[in-house]
Amino acid sequence: MAMLFLSTPARLPVWKPMFDDAGETLIAGEAAVTDPAEVTAIACWTPPADMSRYPNLRVVLSVGAGVDHLPSMPPGVALARTLAPGIEAMVRDWVVMATLMLHRDMPQYLEQGRAELWQSHPVPLASGRRVGIMGMGRIGTLVAHSLSALGFQMAGLSRAAHPADVQTFTPASMDAFLARSDLLICLLPLTAETRGILGARTFAALPRGAGLIHAGRGPHLDLQAMRASLDNGQLGSAMLDVTDPEPLPRDHWLWRDPRVILTPHVAAQTDATEGARHALAVMRALHSGAPLPGLVDQAKGY
Amino acid sequence: MAMLFLSTPARLPVWKPMFDDAGETLIAGEAAVTDPAEVTAIACWTPPADMSRYPNLRVVLSVGAGVDHLPSMPPGVALARTLAPGIEAMVRDWVVMATLMLHRDMPQYLEQGRAELWQSHPVPLASGRRVGIMGMGRIGTLVAHSLSALGFQMAGLSRAAHPADVQTFTPASMDAFLARSDLLICLLPLTAETRGILGARTFAALPRGAGLIHAGRGPHLDLQAMRASLDNGQLGSAMLDVTDPEPLPRDHWLWRDPRVILTPHVAAQTDATEGARHALAVMRALHSGAPLPGLVDQAKGY
Repeated sequence: MAMLFLSTPARLPVWKPMFDDAGETLIAGEAAVTDPAEVTAIACWTPPADMSRYPNLRVVLSVGAGVDHLPSMPPGVALARTLAPGIEAMVRDWVVMATLMLHRDMPQYLEQGRAELWQSHPVPLASGRRVGIMGMGRIGTLVAHSLSALGFQMAGLSRAAHPADVQTFTPASMDAFLARSDLLICLLPLTAETRGILGARTFAALPRGAGLIHAGRGPHLDLQAMRASLDNGQLGSAMLDVTDPEPLPRDHWLWRDPRVILTPHVAAQTDATEGARHALAVMRALHSGAPLPGLVDQAKGY
Repeated sequence: MAMLFLSTPARLPVWKPMFDDAGETLIAGEAAVTDPAEVTAIACWTPPADMSRYPNLRVVLSVGAGVDHLPSMPPGVALARTLAPGIEAMVRDWVVMATLMLHRDMPQYLEQGRAELWQSHPVPLASGRRVGIMGMGRIGTLVAHSLSALGFQMAGLSRAAHPADVQTFTPASMDAFLARSDLLICLLPLTAETRGILGARTFAALPRGAGLIHAGRGPHLDLQAMRASLDNGQLGSAMLDVTDPEPLPRDHWLWRDPRVILTPHVAAQTDATEGARHALAVMRALHSGAPLPGLVDQAKGY
């Protein structure tokens, strides 16, 4: 049993000694594979084009939290994603920052700064602001608790079970959820159902002048619909960590729109040590037959 | 007994009915005073030049949290400042936002955005960042608890009693406090002792590349020393809500320095209802002889 490592080379000096210490085999790159039958797991962002080369492959582990970029797995191959406390805290911190930045009018103050204009506007209280989170998984729940502690009025949208202390709407009552979301946060996984969900219909259901905070995936967002909603005042501002395409090309209008603040997909990165620790937990589960940590339901897509 | 109201006229429609309902007298403006002996309290940002006109004056109430802009009071006149839960929460929210913005390299990402450059940098964990708060009063303590909940390593600098759950340094150990502050937050009151405290000596004692978050008063900060520390790399970035002078004039270098993010003194504003509520509490204390809420120690200056 061995794990084939196809992630960024910079992580290898962290992973290799940890695997050695644990008595596990890590093979760095397909060129280093001498016996394909030995490979039972692959850690990667992009998997090999031909997975049939590995007859005993049992799991593909995404080195990030997302799996939407991965192709369908061959029959009998499980899909897992890396769960690391660091990833969840990083996304939470970015979303709390972005929410406060829209709540406190940073797009406007940054624009005034470029015009060298010192002008204050009424300061809103967090307790008067309703925030809605699309996607109440582990990270969404963490975000809800952090923003609730700052006084924001929180609600979540989720089709699954949810924490009892956060008001949660189901997809059937999505319009009611949107109508009370002054600031809308997207933390959804990308699936066939959620692609394009941040579009004209969703924006029209928000309170006028609402803000959008997007830390999901680029293809959730219909950029032309967002632009139209900003232009007609239905949306007030947006903060995006993801775009479609990525990287966003130079000369794209998003770079120049003062109502939008961008970061280049940096809400979270997997810490190399945490990633290796999760990979070792996957190997231990393969040995013992225990449930795989981070196992993805391939029918649901997350 | 009456309170003379010299604050912004926009607040009067909120204050007047609340005073009427409470059976208290509010006089709007000096021109409306018919019997100066009736005035026992003045609510203002800037007090009258000649307070001796009011022989029974017992308290001047600043309508904001700060009192550093006020002149010395005549003998026998107490000084109070407005305490309102809203002010404290607003400042806390601004400081949490600013801390996250420097922690997550927003000055650099905003500069890259202006250059239309999509480039990520390593994402730091809050648990690896040491934050130091100068000024552990009510707001500093609130900030410490909020940032601690996000995982930051918090410490405070205070000469007075402090909450047991935040590591607190005294002015005698200020160098040790600064040496462990990757991000330095200033929430000090402005006094003769704190004027210019954010200067060359303080910046030199910080870890190299530290960030400065300033929500105190403009004259705490030696702008030329900050610029020199940014230029030689001792400071990495700064986020300022206050400057000296205010408003910051057009063409000032601060507007154009990509390492600095400015907001125009909007960390907090007194909500009119909360301000009136505090003013009524002051009037009730004058009637009953109870301690004045928000009483300032005029020797200490806060």
